[in-house]
Amino acid sequence: MTGTLYAGVDIGGTKIAAALVSDQGRIVRQSRTPTPAEGGATVPVAAARLVAELCSGLGDGAVTAIGVGSPGVIDRAAGRVVSATDVLPGWAGMEVRSTMEALTGVPVTVDNDVRAMAYGEAQAGAGAGFARVLYISVGTGVGGALTRDGRLEYGAHGTAGESAHLLVPATGAIPCGCGRRDHLEAVASGPAMAAAYAARTGSALPLPEIAALSAAGDPAAREVVHGAAALLGRALAGLLAVLDPDALVIGGGAAQIGPDFLAPLTEALHAEALPPLRALPVLPARLGTDAPLIGAALQAMAALAEEAP
Amino acid sequence: MTGTLYAGVDIGGTKIAAALVSDQGRIVRQSRTPTPAEGGATVPVAAARLVAELCSGLGDGAVTAIGVGSPGVIDRAAGRVVSATDVLPGWAGMEVRSTMEALTGVPVTVDNDVRAMAYGEAQAGAGAGFARVLYISVGTGVGGALTRDGRLEYGAHGTAGESAHLLVPATGAIPCGCGRRDHLEAVASGPAMAAAYAARTGSALPLPEIAALSAAGDPAAREVVHGAAALLGRALAGLLAVLDPDALVIGGGAAQIGPDFLAPLTEALHAEALPPLRALPVLPARLGTDAPLIGAALQAMAALAEEAP
Repeated sequence: MTGTLYAGVDIGGTKIAAALVSDQGRIVRQSRTPTPAEGGATVPVAAARLVAELCSGLGDGAVTAIGVGSPGVIDRAAGRVVSATDVLPGWAGMEVRSTMEALTGVPVTVDNDVRAMAYGEAQAGAGAGFARVLYISVGTGVGGALTRDGRLEYGAHGTAGESAHLLVPATGAIPCGCGRRDHLEAVASGPAMAAAYAARTGSALPLPEIAALSAAGDPAAREVVHGAAALLGRALAGLLAVLDPDALVIGGGAAQIGPDFLAPLTEALHAEALPPLRALPVLPARLGTDAPLIGAALQAMAALAEEAP
Repeated sequence: MTGTLYAGVDIGGTKIAAALVSDQGRIVRQSRTPTPAEGGATVPVAAARLVAELCSGLGDGAVTAIGVGSPGVIDRAAGRVVSATDVLPGWAGMEVRSTMEALTGVPVTVDNDVRAMAYGEAQAGAGAGFARVLYISVGTGVGGALTRDGRLEYGAHGTAGESAHLLVPATGAIPCGCGRRDHLEAVASGPAMAAAYAARTGSALPLPEIAALSAAGDPAAREVVHGAAALLGRALAGLLAVLDPDALVIGGGAAQIGPDFLAPLTEALHAEALPPLRALPVLPARLGTDAPLIGAALQAMAALAEEAP
C-alpha cells in the first residue's frame, strides 16, 4: 500500500513551482515552469498543467488534493484572490480554486504564500513540535504568520501575523509596502537593505551580493546587513513579549544570508527582550524554497481531514 | 435562592480594595483599606481581613472563592509573586494564595492586576461579546493583556499581552520600566507624559492636572497628551496587524483622561493601520477601578468551574 500524495503549488511573479508531497510532508517529485506573462487566468491553468505533468505515469487519482500558496490577500473560503500587489498582472479577483478544480477534478485549497511557508515550517520544518510559532519571512517584504497547535491563525480581519508594519526607531531607506515610514519593512526587507547600501555607496547591488560583501568584511555592506538584522531583532523583542510564542522561525530570502544576518538579529533580540524571553528558540527556517510547497500540500490534506465526517 | 458571591481583591501600592461580586460580574458591596507600609506578609493578612469585614452579617460561606489581582509577575499555579518592582516592600516571593487561604478557608486565585482588569473588561465590561480582545492599560506603565474566547492568554513564558516594550520612533522622556529607550512605555505612560511636560515647561505636575490643562487648551499640555496618545495609536496599529483581535479596549489611569486622549489615539491608529483594521472597535474601558475587582472575582469563579468534575 502506498501513502496518499498531495500536490503543493507555489505561485510567484516569475515562476510556478509544484511538488507531490507525502502525508508526512516529504517532497517525492517536483517541477517548475515560468509564470505566464499574461497573468490572470492563464496562471491557474499553467499551475494545473504543471500538477498534471508531475502526476504523469502515476495513474488516475495519484493526487488526493491540491494546495496553492499565492501572493496577495486570499479569501480561503472562496479560493479567490481578494487583492494583490502588481507582482502578477490581473491577479486580484482571480478565482484560483474553481479554475483549478475544474481542470484537475480534485479539491483545491488556496492561501497566502507566507502562510503556506509558515505552515510548512510549523508542520514539517523548524517549528515542528512547538505549540505556538511566530514565523517571520524577510524577503521582498517582511511577512509573518502565526501557528498555534498546528493551525494557522487568521485573526478577525485576516491580517494575523502581519509584522511588516511594526513601528521602528528608524525612517528606513524606502517606504514600507503600505506607503508609510518608520515601519519594520522599510528597514529590514531585502529591497530596504539594498536601498540603504545604494544610498551609502552609490552602488545598486542585489541583496545576495551585498550579503557576500558583508560576509567578506566590507564595512558598508556589513553595517547595512547587521543594522537591519539588529533592528529586526529589537522590533521582534517587543512583539514577542506580546505574543509570547514557543519558538520564532526566521525564513525568506534575507534569512538565507545565514549567520551573518541571524547572529546580529538574535543578539539584538536577546539584549532587548524581557529576561524570560531570552530563552526563546530563534530558529532559521529549515525547508527553504520547499516550505510553501510542503505547507500548501499539508494545508490541502488538513482541509480534507476537517471535512471528513 | 440567592446567587453565589465571589470576592475580588485589588492590591496596590497605597491601598487594597475588595468587593463582593455576583456571578454576573456585578459588585454588591465594596471597601478599601490602606496598604500596610511594612509590606510583605502583612498585605495578604490585611486583604483577608478586608474580605472578612465585607462579609460581616452575611453568615458563614458568604463567599465561595477569592480572586486577587496583584502587581508583579505571578506564578498562578502556586499563587505566589515571582517578581515585583518596588511598588510594595518585600513583595517578590510572597505566598499570597496560601496565606489568604489559611486565613479565610476558601479557595484563592492570584493573577497579575493588569490581567485581572483585562478579564473583568472582557467578561463584564467593554470587551464583552468579542472573541479576541487586546486590553491596553495606560497608567504608571503601559500594560496589556489578551483574552480569547473568554480566557486570558499567558503565553509560553507568562508575558503574553505585555505591550510596554514595543519599539517606537521616539526616545521618550524617561526610560522604560525595563530600563531601555525607544519603548512605548517610555513615551505613553502617565509618568512619561508628566516628564515630557516637565521637560517642556519646567513644571512638575501630576498627569490629571496636565490632562486638565490640555482639555482647557494649554498648548504644551495638549502637545504632550496628544503626542503620547498618537504615538500609542501608531504603535498599536502595527501590533494590531499581528494580533488581529476583534476589539481593542483602552483602560488605566491615562485612559480616564477621556476623549482628549482616546480621540488622537484612535485617529492615529486609523491613519496608520492596514485598511481592514480601520473597522476595529477601539473602546474605552467601562469598569474603571472596578475592573480588577470584578475581573479577579470572576477569575476565582472560573477556576472553581474548571476544577469541578
